[in-house]
Amino acid sequence: MTAFDELMVFQRETEALAQVAGRLSWDQETMMPRGAAPQRAEESAALETVLHARRVDPKVGDWLATIDEANLDDVGRAQLRHIRRSHARAIKVPAALASRIARLTSEAQGIWAAARAAEDVRAFVPTLSEVITLKREEGLALSAGGDVYDAMLNDYEPGATGAELEAMFGALRPELSSLREAVREAEAPPRLEGRFDEAAQMKLTRQLAKTFGYDMSMGRVDKAVHPFSSGSGLDVRITTRTNELDPFNCFYSTIHEVGHACYEQGIDRAFLLTPLGAGVSMGVHESQSRIYENQFGRSRPFTGWLYGQMREAFGDFGVPDEDVFYRIVNRVSDGYVRTEADELQYNLHVLLRFDLERALMQGNLQVSELEAAWNDRFRADFGYDVDKPSNGVLQDVHWSVGLFGYFPTYTLGNVYAGCLYDALRDDIHTLDTDLAQGNTSAATGWLRQKVQTHGGLYEPRQLIAQAAGKSASETPLLAYLQRKFSQLYNL
Amino acid sequence: MTAFDELMVFQRETEALAQVAGRLSWDQETMMPRGAAPQRAEESAALETVLHARRVDPKVGDWLATIDEANLDDVGRAQLRHIRRSHARAIKVPAALASRIARLTSEAQGIWAAARAAEDVRAFVPTLSEVITLKREEGLALSAGGDVYDAMLNDYEPGATGAELEAMFGALRPELSSLREAVREAEAPPRLEGRFDEAAQMKLTRQLAKTFGYDMSMGRVDKAVHPFSSGSGLDVRITTRTNELDPFNCFYSTIHEVGHACYEQGIDRAFLLTPLGAGVSMGVHESQSRIYENQFGRSRPFTGWLYGQMREAFGDFGVPDEDVFYRIVNRVSDGYVRTEADELQYNLHVLLRFDLERALMQGNLQVSELEAAWNDRFRADFGYDVDKPSNGVLQDVHWSVGLFGYFPTYTLGNVYAGCLYDALRDDIHTLDTDLAQGNTSAATGWLRQKVQTHGGLYEPRQLIAQAAGKSASETPLLAYLQRKFSQLYNL
Repeated sequence: MTAFDELMVFQRETEALAQVAGRLSWDQETMMPRGAAPQRAEESAALETVLHARRVDPKVGDWLATIDEANLDDVGRAQLRHIRRSHARAIKVPAALASRIARLTSEAQGIWAAARAAEDVRAFVPTLSEVITLKREEGLALSAGGDVYDAMLNDYEPGATGAELEAMFGALRPELSSLREAVREAEAPPRLEGRFDEAAQMKLTRQLAKTFGYDMSMGRVDKAVHPFSSGSGLDVRITTRTNELDPFNCFYSTIHEVGHACYEQGIDRAFLLTPLGAGVSMGVHESQSRIYENQFGRSRPFTGWLYGQMREAFGDFGVPDEDVFYRIVNRVSDGYVRTEADELQYNLHVLLRFDLERALMQGNLQVSELEAAWNDRFRADFGYDVDKPSNGVLQDVHWSVGLFGYFPTYTLGNVYAGCLYDALRDDIHTLDTDLAQGNTSAATGWLRQKVQTHGGLYEPRQLIAQAAGKSASETPLLAYLQRKFSQLYNL
Repeated sequence: MTAFDELMVFQRETEALAQVAGRLSWDQETMMPRGAAPQRAEESAALETVLHARRVDPKVGDWLATIDEANLDDVGRAQLRHIRRSHARAIKVPAALASRIARLTSEAQGIWAAARAAEDVRAFVPTLSEVITLKREEGLALSAGGDVYDAMLNDYEPGATGAELEAMFGALRPELSSLREAVREAEAPPRLEGRFDEAAQMKLTRQLAKTFGYDMSMGRVDKAVHPFSSGSGLDVRITTRTNELDPFNCFYSTIHEVGHACYEQGIDRAFLLTPLGAGVSMGVHESQSRIYENQFGRSRPFTGWLYGQMREAFGDFGVPDEDVFYRIVNRVSDGYVRTEADELQYNLHVLLRFDLERALMQGNLQVSELEAAWNDRFRADFGYDVDKPSNGVLQDVHWSVGLFGYFPTYTLGNVYAGCLYDALRDDIHTLDTDLAQGNTSAATGWLRQKVQTHGGLYEPRQLIAQAAGKSASETPLLAYLQRKFSQLYNL
């Protein structure tokens, strides 16, 4: 065996173990009996120790130093690029720091949850300060003199920089804000009313999953507190949730997670259990979940079809026709919470977090000033005051578990989705008539071929540029939102 | 840290990883989408490689050589005994042989299943021969000149020998055979008739699990093709199955698995994720599952209570009273299949397999002669001919996956259960009135205190002797069965 072959055998085992760790997390959120939590913590930690030891294993460094890339094809070079990045990241962070971060963030999540339940920001401030101190230390180790926040971004969106996102988001914010203002002043559509049987929601949601191409022979749909997609390759599972009053939450959570899951299921099988065998970045992942959910799932043609499905499932539920249904699905409502935000307002929530977390990491904002900064910014962007911390600075789990640099990938995903949607419409002239019949196969097939099948083969920006036919920019997303909501609200 | 402390930290991680491997198996039998099988095989193999590397890690040998047992308490010495045994076993078997066995038995299971489906013994013979060749090679490596079969037994029942089991089983066989003959000649009770809603079966089976003390906050009950119990400590899950025509299959599978699960749940929490934190042997494990299932679950008092529960769940199901119900539950029927056998005939099935597998391992029986030997022995013990291989030599999965020395632990478990039941009756005078009210707490509490809580602290025979107040022997089991079935069949 060549050094490359040996490295790939080793890596394949590592990837298999990483999948096991993912399965444990899935189990924890869906099946695990509550009383098992302390034991599970030890089980997960033991597996994490094994994975860490493999990532920093000096053998990997030796193999990487030995391999002559000139002898490899494009796929081989791409595999190496991922292994090199992961190994370099692992050895840059001192083991003691990594373990302090793991311990602190595991405790911090509980402290955050308690503070949120008690609406008590001050109870969380000291812990968040510690998290930020350690994460900055990690960022310094990773950045080697460069920008700390950029080093963090790189964990989720390789190649992205804070400066570039600032420019992109800076172009979005005033436009979204003024579109939002105009919508608020226009006449609002009605709200959905009534009760929707939860078993019937689950039945329809499974049908929706299949409608969007989710392969149930290599996946499953369960209920969990938070919807998520888990796993790669031949075992990609999703969760959703039900609320008797809000079937859209169930359906659009499912479609969103199906977008993530189809990305993983759509990757070239030749990449199974290799570094190329998973979605290439959080932003690209989110582009798939959001285009399934929004550009397809919340479109006029598709909601027309969904209206019929819901009438079959629930009988007459008080919405007179497809047009009203479409307006209800896309209703823009005042609110505080990112995860409940509509397509138009969602990115304003993300932009707020991006600016604040970047300032925190760069030392331009102190944790003690964070709540005030959040509330000021919220008032500026949304026009009303945050009513309580659980609707404000305490609403997201991310910072408590050390996720800094993750939030912007949500909006980046929407930006990518906008670019992909433009190109896809150019290629698939039957899109609207397909979607009106609940047929997504041409659209999802296009995404599979242009994006999903490549796994980690290309860097995120290159992948999107190839698929969309031009470099990623916020323009298509903005134009799409302006078109859609102007029409919806007769602006 | 002392060498002992360091060893225990290392061992605790190993135990945690072993629990993860167990969880993967549970997932595979209950939740995993079918299409994930090839990926799961790699995931499990990767985890098994990690576990094997830890078991043979030279560090363990160094620690074991360094530790002065004189400085340890009884618990520490018992921990060492287990670690020493597991380490010695792992290093005795050459890695290449272990991996050949793993690969072959994983293929052999599929070949066995196909041969069984086709009723084609000859299609399985070459594979079984290979399995036996490799397992004998392993047995030779383990036994270091001693008896090969004893070395295998030791994997499942430390301290047991083939010669001793031969004596014990030799005393059982003629007595069970003649009791069986007498029962066959007596008037048979009626059979259960009708259809029993499977959802209602699951509801009642969950209630039964709680009735026998299964802690659902650290466990769960799912359906699977084969009932099993999985995991130790704070996460012990069971499965059961339903058949509309045979609710007893569901209920008694559940009670059986609850016996296994309560053993694991009942172990002293101080032993969590240590070598003492799991059931000490297959025989002792089976003693718990069988005493729950048979001595308690199929007793006259408990079946009286169960009759009432079933009438609540299913209405009038055509059985006039508790006495008839008791006779139906304990009906002795002709049959070929071990897993469907009643309490009286079950051990005859096991004894047959014990003698055959021991002869195979000792080279006294060739695989080519196995089917004939099985059929001859079956006719001698049961009085009629095996009708087809799937009801004969191909019925069990065990040999295909390399389990030799496992079968006798089933009967050993029944023998232990007989001993424990005698002692328990002496201590708990309210047993019958308790069970008649569906109250198992005194009985299961006695077992928890005498057996379960000790985990792996004592060797199996010592544990049973302490709990029962005398050495294990087949006499109590035999007397119990003779008493029970003479009364049931008016002999």
